[in-house]
Amino acid sequence: MAQPKRVFFVSDRTGITVEALGSSLLSQFAEVNLVRVTMPFIDSIDKARDAVAQVNEAHRESGDRPLVFSSIVDDKVRAEINKADGLVLDVFERFIVPLEQELGVKSMHAVGRTHSVGNAKDYNHRIEAINYTLAHDDGVTHRGLEEADIVLVGVSRSGKTPTCLYMAMQFGIKAANYPLIPEDLEANRLPPSLAPLKGKVWGLSITPDRLHHIRSERRPDSRYASLENCRFEVAAAEKLMRQAQIPFLDSTTKSIEEIATHMLHEAHLVRRVY
Amino acid sequence: MAQPKRVFFVSDRTGITVEALGSSLLSQFAEVNLVRVTMPFIDSIDKARDAVAQVNEAHRESGDRPLVFSSIVDDKVRAEINKADGLVLDVFERFIVPLEQELGVKSMHAVGRTHSVGNAKDYNHRIEAINYTLAHDDGVTHRGLEEADIVLVGVSRSGKTPTCLYMAMQFGIKAANYPLIPEDLEANRLPPSLAPLKGKVWGLSITPDRLHHIRSERRPDSRYASLENCRFEVAAAEKLMRQAQIPFLDSTTKSIEEIATHMLHEAHLVRRVY
Repeated sequence: MAQPKRVFFVSDRTGITVEALGSSLLSQFAEVNLVRVTMPFIDSIDKARDAVAQVNEAHRESGDRPLVFSSIVDDKVRAEINKADGLVLDVFERFIVPLEQELGVKSMHAVGRTHSVGNAKDYNHRIEAINYTLAHDDGVTHRGLEEADIVLVGVSRSGKTPTCLYMAMQFGIKAANYPLIPEDLEANRLPPSLAPLKGKVWGLSITPDRLHHIRSERRPDSRYASLENCRFEVAAAEKLMRQAQIPFLDSTTKSIEEIATHMLHEAHLVRRVY
Repeated sequence: MAQPKRVFFVSDRTGITVEALGSSLLSQFAEVNLVRVTMPFIDSIDKARDAVAQVNEAHRESGDRPLVFSSIVDDKVRAEINKADGLVLDVFERFIVPLEQELGVKSMHAVGRTHSVGNAKDYNHRIEAINYTLAHDDGVTHRGLEEADIVLVGVSRSGKTPTCLYMAMQFGIKAANYPLIPEDLEANRLPPSLAPLKGKVWGLSITPDRLHHIRSERRPDSRYASLENCRFEVAAAEKLMRQAQIPFLDSTTKSIEEIATHMLHEAHLVRRVY
């Protein structure tokens, strides 16, 4: 087995975007074993020199040139990082020049414009969406349900809460969620308070096996978690959603990013990426 | 005022990474007015042709060449997008070739390796972190507090909940939070249940003005929201945290990304970027 490849994510800010990008690219090389190091807030020449020393040390130690994904706005700081004894791929450098040419203006080269509070109005919108979503988790209250951008329904533990929180956090969407409980399933109709919200309501489903597994971790050997009950609930919920013409997605094989993106796209909701 | 520049984010998956990257780069051109369109799940030649038609239509309509940030793994689909009548900047294309050369292997060119459920163990870890964080929000329970990776303290409405949820969602960190209530502030000591967790405890502070503003939206004209009380609570909380040697950050001017990155970095916690 080959030695693991050292990968450094270096950024003058949080490094979240460059790490997501680098991870996404590296996922195309599944056979390569990786050891990752994140270096955020590298915003001075001194810090850049320290970062380079770490990269070079990793090279000496492993005898193998590390990968460096970087996003450094300041030219002098970037020049230091470029001296590292590794393959340095800087996103800022590779994209800012073509953008400057196309837009016919110089970029500001100002550090700290990403993931900063920046526009206070946008930022408050996001925090409000998170608070709204928490206050409307799991059918806690009907009050203000009409303010929701989206309302998710599904059986208990089908993935509603993480999906709603993700939509709020990442996209600034007010996402309420409402469980489909046995009474709804027996009556075969949506909870009455959702009837006026029809166009905003989306469903989540899940395979009975997976649901059984998730519920068993919480309440082992309960009727609630039994495979038989999970089969019944999932079938009844899907029937109800079909009848009520609620579009639904299966959360078993989709990540919360995928579910959220699908729903907002189909619902023509404008998303903001924070 | 110049016409707004049209920007398209085109991806064969969710488009979240390419949109974050493009937005980050464009934030360097603050004077350029933008109209954004996101096109996720462009994973076939037909869909790519539709996307290109929209870009070309935007060009005809505005008389100005749009920007296209794309992330397309499949060579044929990418070739279609490259035909668009705009400046196409594809992250996959620009980075995968140098990576292939460096790693000495061909990439898989497999769509759907980012933001997919992929590694079920990692994914479950993330969902568990979210559930843990929700169950340990606002001091709801002491049970299992020792499992936390990090425990955030601060006065009510200092930003603890969104920060903790972000750490769980984005980084897979189990983040509990605990309010500092008037009784703690008067006694000038940490809630006793936190004493054994010392090395994991971090604080959030906020300016009294900002706190007054946030609390007033919830409970206008209350003693709780009064500027005088906010001043008292913030001063007392900072005194308490200093004395207890709890490192703290000011949430007033920092985004949740920045706060989370700072804390994990200083605490030497390994983050995963999802």
